[in-house]
Amino acid sequence: MTRQVTRLDLPATSELPERTKRYLQLCEEKLGMVPNVLQAYLFDMAKFDAFVAMYSDLMLGESGLSKLEREMIAVVVSSINRCWYCQVAHGAAVRELSGDPALGEAMVMNYRAAPLDQRTRAMLDFAALVTEASAKVSDADRDGVRAHGFTDRDIFDIIAVVGFFSMTNRVASATGMEPNPDYHAQAR
Amino acid sequence: MTRQVTRLDLPATSELPERTKRYLQLCEEKLGMVPNVLQAYLFDMAKFDAFVAMYSDLMLGESGLSKLEREMIAVVVSSINRCWYCQVAHGAAVRELSGDPALGEAMVMNYRAAPLDQRTRAMLDFAALVTEASAKVSDADRDGVRAHGFTDRDIFDIIAVVGFFSMTNRVASATGMEPNPDYHAQAR
Amino acid sequence: MTRQVTRLDLPATSELPERTKRYLQLCEEKLGMVPNVLQAYLFDMAKFDAFVAMYSDLMLGESGLSKLEREMIAVVVSSINRCWYCQVAHGAAVRELSGDPALGEAMVMNYRAAPLDQRTRAMLDFAALVTEASAKVSDADRDGVRAHGFTDRDIFDIIAVVGFFSMTNRVASATGMEPNPDYHAQAR
Amino acid sequence: MTRQVTRLDLPATSELPERTKRYLQLCEEKLGMVPNVLQAYLFDMAKFDAFVAMYSDLMLGESGLSKLEREMIAVVVSSINRCWYCQVAHGAAVRELSGDPALGEAMVMNYRAAPLDQRTRAMLDFAALVTEASAKVSDADRDGVRAHGFTDRDIFDIIAVVGFFSMTNRVASATGMEPNPDYHAQAR
Amino acid sequence: MTRQVTRLDLPATSELPERTKRYLQLCEEKLGMVPNVLQAYLFDMAKFDAFVAMYSDLMLGESGLSKLEREMIAVVVSSINRCWYCQVAHGAAVRELSGDPALGEAMVMNYRAAPLDQRTRAMLDFAALVTEASAKVSDADRDGVRAHGFTDRDIFDIIAVVGFFSMTNRVASATGMEPNPDYHAQAR
Amino acid sequence: MTRQVTRLDLPATSELPERTKRYLQLCEEKLGMVPNVLQAYLFDMAKFDAFVAMYSDLMLGESGLSKLEREMIAVVVSSINRCWYCQVAHGAAVRELSGDPALGEAMVMNYRAAPLDQRTRAMLDFAALVTEASAKVSDADRDGVRAHGFTDRDIFDIIAVVGFFSMTNRVASATGMEPNPDYHAQAR
Repeated sequence: MTRQVTRLDLPATSELPERTKRYLQLCEEKLGMVPNVLQAYLFDMAKFDAFVAMYSDLMLGESGLSKLEREMIAVVVSSINRCWYCQVAHGAAVRELSGDPALGEAMVMNYRAAPLDQRTRAMLDFAALVTEASAKVSDADRDGVRAHGFTDRDIFDIIAVVGFFSMTNRVASATGMEPNPDYHAQAR
Repeated sequence: MTRQVTRLDLPATSELPERTKRYLQLCEEKLGMVPNVLQAYLFDMAKFDAFVAMYSDLMLGESGLSKLEREMIAVVVSSINRCWYCQVAHGAAVRELSGDPALGEAMVMNYRAAPLDQRTRAMLDFAALVTEASAKVSDADRDGVRAHGFTDRDIFDIIAVVGFFSMTNRVASATGMEPNPDYHAQAR
Repeated sequence: MTRQVTRLDLPATSELPERTKRYLQLCEEKLGMVPNVLQAYLFDMAKFDAFVAMYSDLMLGESGLSKLEREMIAVVVSSINRCWYCQVAHGAAVRELSGDPALGEAMVMNYRAAPLDQRTRAMLDFAALVTEASAKVSDADRDGVRAHGFTDRDIFDIIAVVGFFSMTNRVASATGMEPNPDYHAQAR
Repeated sequence: MTRQVTRLDLPATSELPERTKRYLQLCEEKLGMVPNVLQAYLFDMAKFDAFVAMYSDLMLGESGLSKLEREMIAVVVSSINRCWYCQVAHGAAVRELSGDPALGEAMVMNYRAAPLDQRTRAMLDFAALVTEASAKVSDADRDGVRAHGFTDRDIFDIIAVVGFFSMTNRVASATGMEPNPDYHAQAR
Repeated sequence: MTRQVTRLDLPATSELPERTKRYLQLCEEKLGMVPNVLQAYLFDMAKFDAFVAMYSDLMLGESGLSKLEREMIAVVVSSINRCWYCQVAHGAAVRELSGDPALGEAMVMNYRAAPLDQRTRAMLDFAALVTEASAKVSDADRDGVRAHGFTDRDIFDIIAVVGFFSMTNRVASATGMEPNPDYHAQAR
Repeated sequence: MTRQVTRLDLPATSELPERTKRYLQLCEEKLGMVPNVLQAYLFDMAKFDAFVAMYSDLMLGESGLSKLEREMIAVVVSSINRCWYCQVAHGAAVRELSGDPALGEAMVMNYRAAPLDQRTRAMLDFAALVTEASAKVSDADRDGVRAHGFTDRDIFDIIAVVGFFSMTNRVASATGMEPNPDYHAQAR
């Protein structure tokens, strides 16, 4: 389980806390694997815990955005940044949650080619803008998203998911993180 | 204390937990203010806690990188992304920690113009590469940093700080977060 | 068979030549479908014939490059240009020809993350350079590829495949061409 | 006639077919030269024939676009890609067909500076968009061109010419193709 | 006074003209220093005089733009070009002339984050456009600035200041010019 | 002579100084025309004089760079910035001074395609770097040019010419300046 999954030599700590062992076991049971990103953080429990807490809140917690919407944002960001790990893992999540393999492919390849309703398209256009040119985001941009019915809390969540994957894309790519091979065939 | 500090209407929760009140009070005592980024997260305790945990670990926790080195990386990333909030707040931190106001200015304006030793320059060049083109980072790039004496754990920490500010830059800029005015005159 | 597959209203000519009917029938037999790109050209036989002739020569004809190598180049170019049609169709071809689904994914997502031998990597780096900055290609770049054992004819073929997909990517994307849904599940 | 015109060592086949000899002789008679791009393809008849067929159809065949319009598009694309060969050869064609040397210069240097009617400007803006960002072309962009009276077939032809020069620019630049010196003084 | 201030070895001429000595003395009296950019030009009186004449006319002479407006433009251009010298020196000028240290910081870090009136914002957006994409400036852009009450002479002056700093940014950065340390603490 | 040559309404001053009249007459005699850029500055004598002084020093004064070398740099910068006026006027100067029409074309279209000696190529590569990324110019870049025999004064002159055209390109393009038609046919 602690096989090295990045190009950095950072072995897992010898004594994992009980709560961490249970968490990894839970992953194994529910997902059939421990995602490599989790293994990559096992060298330091403070970093592991901080990552898991933020990930769980953003992607699995309460939000006006559905889990599928959050995963679509994740893949659009990861596609712009060309992050191998995150496109593989979250592309699978989009296929799984939507039941639409082509939708997962489109998020990876070019979200503009997907047959999206206007609200979803506006959400992803805003996510792409925040990814590529956050310093230029203006009140007009935020109002543009509000006009499609997104609340200020929804807008925060879009931005937060973009931010999170702007972070993990860089961590995964710059450490040379390899995704679990299991993802490739999932939900095709 | 809960005055709105972003362009999103997300008021603080009415009942802050005791631990949060103490944390904010501690900020007030040690920094003379509560940084606006903290106030911006007070609308949701899970997000506040996750942000503080990750920030504290990365910027204040144990690391082979000094706090000044981490703050220099923070400002270089924030300068590339032109994040108003983070350049202001962390530019002040570089001035404070280094005792060298011009160094803080150089990190904001063009780190390549600063009179840095080769090791620090290599660290910041790598940080800039991860910020701008993480998908192109290769073993050769990682070896280049190793050649200046950085361990794999140090390299992880450089990447993690770059990642964290790639996230917070987008959250701050896209929400229109305003820095506390106190920073501008600090450590000049 | 002549259902509109682009966002331009260009119906197939009413009387297809016999040789064209046979060609389409052959596609149906060998591929189980008529690729939409062929249907898109059915409005004008001169264009259809010119496209098929060039495609067949470049991708199926004699070359020092294997068919898989040519398809890998095709996907790398199409990924840089984010062409929905060509990433879908030729990503499937890479999976099929290589028997390695993850390789097809990597060509789409970030070819730099794939575990390629140095010769193949040099070929794809050169293809990416020609795609992104052909005006800067120099003798040194050509010599760099020659050093990996590519002949001048091989180099021509790399360039020609890059050129061809630089063309078809633009035709497909700018006409709004939709790929056959059959590709998505192939060779997973 | 078969002097090497690129930086690749690909000599002409020893036995040119009769039809090819006649075609080259025709060029000599009508243009006073054999364009080097044709000589560059003489090493392989299948490639020569495919290139000539596509070129002839697109640039000389039936179209709602005039030959001058097609050549203007060719130069705008080649200018964006900074292709030495195609700017020289097709810049001359614009000067020749328009009888306006300054127009040829403007297509090379900055088409936005030329005193064009709105329809032509819209055509060239669309061509520039397809050249630079085909993955972002939308129904709104196509409707924008339609609003200037271009039919769907015209739009296809604009896109096809852009595509063709996106291809030949890369083939010419990446092989180091040198234009015939005769072009420089033509139609000044 | 003639200490080398760039990375080029170009010592001051041994015999400065009287008018130059007086000019430098005047700087010393009024500014408390001789700005390094002046020292950098002392190796050649023709260049020194030409620079001073143009600078004085543009930044100190008659104009519909206030000196503060001209300095704001100077810093926005210098920030886009990341010129260390000019951001330091003219950032100080903005702080000084406006009496608002945060305004100087915002011009350096991201002028879009500053609380500007619409007219000033339009002026700086136009300046940024001329800095980044002058070849695309159109009548519509000029009319956009006119709509905020700028005269054609004002527009010329905006463009001229952008042009001047597009020049001096390159001269300062490419020669490795170091700003006088005195600027950093000014008007904080 | 005072016909408007830009898109700004800035008529020439009614009473031109005698020295200016003589200068314009001299242009007429030597060049057969008054370059439009001079006419564009006739609305304000201080600006006219400053422009002429700087231009004359840089392009016509003493320098280790030949006039042809300076004009080649001028065109390379103007080509990168796609300045219509300067490519036309200085492209003609390169043709004239070199007696090689194709050289003028290559400077406009893609200087990398010209058959230049290594020293000249290094000079133009450095000029392109200063044009596009002056903030990244390092000691290594300056040493690279020195290695081809350029003195520090030569390097200053390369940078100064790049700077000057970085300025005039923006002034010409952003004011919509139109070149004299006479240039197009010169020295073909």
